[in-house]
Amino acid sequence: MKPKINFETYPEIYNHWELKFEKNTAFLIMKVDEDKGFFEGYKLKLNSYDIGVDIELSDAVQRLRFEHPQISSIIIKSGNEKAFCAGANIKMLASSDHAHKVNFCKFTNETRNFLENSSKEASQFFICLVEGVCAGGGYELALACDHIILLDDGSSSISLPEVPLLAVLPGTGGLTRLTDKRKIRRDLADVFCTMEEGVKAKKAKEWRLVDTITKKTALNDELNSLIKNKSCNKNQNENLVGVQLNNLQKNTVSNEEIKYSTLSVQIDREKKSATITINASLEDAPENLSEILSQGDDFWLLKCARELDDTILNLRFNELEIGIIVFKTSGDISKVLSYDKLFETYKNFWLMNEISYFWTRVFKRIDLTSRTLITLIEPNSCYAGFLSELIFAADRSYMAEGEFEEYDNKKATIILSKSNFGNFLMSNNMSRLDTRFIGLPEQILLVKQNLEKQILAEEANDLGLITFMFDDIDWEDEIRIFLEERSSFSPDSMVGMESNLRFPGKETMETKIFGRLSAWQNWIFQRPSAVGENGALKKYGTGNKGQYTKERT
Amino acid sequence: MKPKINFETYPEIYNHWELKFEKNTAFLIMKVDEDKGFFEGYKLKLNSYDIGVDIELSDAVQRLRFEHPQISSIIIKSGNEKAFCAGANIKMLASSDHAHKVNFCKFTNETRNFLENSSKEASQFFICLVEGVCAGGGYELALACDHIILLDDGSSSISLPEVPLLAVLPGTGGLTRLTDKRKIRRDLADVFCTMEEGVKAKKAKEWRLVDTITKKTALNDELNSLIKNKSCNKNQNENLVGVQLNNLQKNTVSNEEIKYSTLSVQIDREKKSATITINASLEDAPENLSEILSQGDDFWLLKCARELDDTILNLRFNELEIGIIVFKTSGDISKVLSYDKLFETYKNFWLMNEISYFWTRVFKRIDLTSRTLITLIEPNSCYAGFLSELIFAADRSYMAEGEFEEYDNKKATIILSKSNFGNFLMSNNMSRLDTRFIGLPEQILLVKQNLEKQILAEEANDLGLITFMFDDIDWEDEIRIFLEERSSFSPDSMVGMESNLRFPGKETMETKIFGRLSAWQNWIFQRPSAVGENGALKKYGTGNKGQYTKERT
Repeated sequence: MKPKINFETYPEIYNHWELKFEKNTAFLIMKVDEDKGFFEGYKLKLNSYDIGVDIELSDAVQRLRFEHPQISSIIIKSGNEKAFCAGANIKMLASSDHAHKVNFCKFTNETRNFLENSSKEASQFFICLVEGVCAGGGYELALACDHIILLDDGSSSISLPEVPLLAVLPGTGGLTRLTDKRKIRRDLADVFCTMEEGVKAKKAKEWRLVDTITKKTALNDELNSLIKNKSCNKNQNENLVGVQLNNLQKNTVSNEEIKYSTLSVQIDREKKSATITINASLEDAPENLSEILSQGDDFWLLKCARELDDTILNLRFNELEIGIIVFKTSGDISKVLSYDKLFETYKNFWLMNEISYFWTRVFKRIDLTSRTLITLIEPNSCYAGFLSELIFAADRSYMAEGEFEEYDNKKATIILSKSNFGNFLMSNNMSRLDTRFIGLPEQILLVKQNLEKQILAEEANDLGLITFMFDDIDWEDEIRIFLEERSSFSPDSMVGMESNLRFPGKETMETKIFGRLSAWQNWIFQRPSAVGENGALKKYGTGNKGQYTKERT
Repeated sequence: MKPKINFETYPEIYNHWELKFEKNTAFLIMKVDEDKGFFEGYKLKLNSYDIGVDIELSDAVQRLRFEHPQISSIIIKSGNEKAFCAGANIKMLASSDHAHKVNFCKFTNETRNFLENSSKEASQFFICLVEGVCAGGGYELALACDHIILLDDGSSSISLPEVPLLAVLPGTGGLTRLTDKRKIRRDLADVFCTMEEGVKAKKAKEWRLVDTITKKTALNDELNSLIKNKSCNKNQNENLVGVQLNNLQKNTVSNEEIKYSTLSVQIDREKKSATITINASLEDAPENLSEILSQGDDFWLLKCARELDDTILNLRFNELEIGIIVFKTSGDISKVLSYDKLFETYKNFWLMNEISYFWTRVFKRIDLTSRTLITLIEPNSCYAGFLSELIFAADRSYMAEGEFEEYDNKKATIILSKSNFGNFLMSNNMSRLDTRFIGLPEQILLVKQNLEKQILAEEANDLGLITFMFDDIDWEDEIRIFLEERSSFSPDSMVGMESNLRFPGKETMETKIFGRLSAWQNWIFQRPSAVGENGALKKYGTGNKGQYTKERT
């Protein structure tokens, strides 16, 4: 049995990265320990990576934002002179099952998107210094940075060699960054993506694949000038003191139950569903900034985001047969609303800003989770402001209508706030409400008239905020019937359907990475030319070439 | 061996459709002959369709535009009272190989896009009258029309039952029309797409899945009022006389060579490439409208579009192992330019307009053809105006530099015209030049300065119009080496790579249908839950349900 994947780590125990600081600059140094692959059976040669390497990168980017807000420039480089990074490890890919390949690519891209947004969101500017081989996913990492420096030393090179070498698409993401971020001319991109050997400094600059090329002797000056330039933008943050992210309070009660401090997860293996209940039994919201700061990572809005993120990743990677995620909340809705208001009140304060972006990432991660997402709005629920995003992230939401005996005749309510109108944008750069009402934009105005009001089921239904409402008599049966029906459907058709229905209208680089490019990659990851016994992924490193089916489709 | 697919037909020999006229209204009646399936082994029950049915539909839409420009309303309905259309035939899908499924879905969608654009492009308004079952691809056809009427008779219904019944995505296209054309709320779309039985009149209207519901007794009034409304817009066309589309002049010389009147196709099975040479040995361009009209379907601009379209479809469906299409042209470039100018001179004349839209469709069909596309610009080439689109549609273009002995020391040239700046938009609604220079929009201005000038290789290279140039000494070797290398790559990785590189930036409903949704469908079409021995497609109609792999990816 494969080991469960744990997404928690911290710099002191990193195997593959080193995080160093010099004044307002951080150095994120990739030094992959080839003997510490996450799974058995491969060596992480030449700074190639697997999920273990990527979890550390993701952790580092997160800590830079929360623990080191004073940092304005981050230099990503290699601790291995021969290779910046050889990309995703091929033997790992070849030996992984389809679901892991897909999940791995998705997580990797989420991390790159996160890193990519740091300069805009937190004035943390990423400089990628490429020395040696930078291939496939390695160049993807470079592409995610704000500035790429390629050494002009006659040997350092960048490449996306997957097509000729492995018969798969470049890294699931890099190709979209080529077309949509760097906007490389399509025929040059074609040439670049079919060259095993890639390109060196001169051509890389000419084709706009890197930002700067420089001789090694001039490198320090180049770096210093870039850093100086960028840190000017962030002088005001120089004296910020970060918030330490301690280990999560996570209690794995059984194989079917995990309790965190702010939520619990209950798995029903027969129904193939997991219920995530956010327990908002809250103290009063902090009344000022110093109170928020003194709470540190114990501050509910931060703690809950971290725990929810961990939960989603755990379900994605470790619970492949759980096809449905049911979201529930329980607690005092007015208290949740008062927490929610902190987003607005302190929006100019770096920490609230970071927490808001973190929730944006968590909600995006939910949107991109290929499980059926259901939100239940019950009498004891507390969907106020940001938590209501779970209603709009869901494929369907069910709301309790009228009084429920079990809950002392309380009625279910929803409260919307400013948070729901642009704070937590989806990957398509639209709010979930704008996405929901793409066909009836006038509906948004009606919904806005109910800001901060308690919305009961019937009204929520009229406003189009929920999918169905059921009363006390029908509630349990209807939910049960739905869950049973849903888990009788083909998981693959659910994946395809949900990926399409969740993203109507406009596309962005992010949605294209996950919706267009990934779908092609998933297809290729099923095809004999790539993954068959004689496919390129299997044959890589054996001295034999992959054998390809000849037909075009 | 499967029969070759022939894309030529005409109403008198249709098996499955009837095209009738009443004043300015056409009736396109679907009456599928269940015994005339294109392949063996299935019956086309309940107006279900296969490629044969779709070829006739495509032909009918084309003839409506060219032969019947006076028509302002088209009513699509069924000649079978029980069923409007049950969608794509399941047994046909289950027994088709992967490539045919993919090609079939693509062609079907191209036809629907074509039909869909008729109201905007030619004021031909499509009304879909749904009586009886309208399922899957049947509802997709309805979705492509401008107005859907569903009979409110207690039994007529619309549905997208593919997910629950067949474990595949709704018809490869319909799902995107649901989200991006009709903009159905995502959770209602989720409900609709998971209901085997679909919805009847009341709910269909409430969810905005149809435009009008009507009792049978009120149907005629409803139709008449719609027709009256729409035909007002087109009164000026009432007296137009169409151009008859006669059979193509096509001479299949051998299994490797086809000669049309304006182009020839040469297949090299070893190199896995097909060379399409447009032979523009032209008479002088017509000098006025009556000359164009009198030439009818013999008019070069029309004839060449029809022949090229037929060629591309033939290669797509009948030559699956031919992975590379090489475009060449030969002829007098100044004559081609004078033909090209007719697009501008007579842009307000319905026939030139139709021919221009036809070329738009042909070029789009080329963009969407999953073969490597290469354009060679040689000393005897005649890439002027619209024909230069072949340079920008290609994945790469190679231009001859300097004098070539073989061609009496002539030099290769390109001439651009207004045609290249917005006449022939891609599916992304951008011109090919705008798509090409998405990263360097200022380049467009430089290119525009060379309008109607003869551009030689070096200048074309500087302007970024071509990928590579080679002189007389290197030309043949370089092309040969490239073709050999390209055909050594995995065809699947080429499909994925090209589909992504050709469509950087903005997406539209059309690009999402072909790039996002189709990729998911292709993936599903590879997965055991759909196509395995016990998959839903194979088990359909046996009384047993499909068996699904349980893991989510």
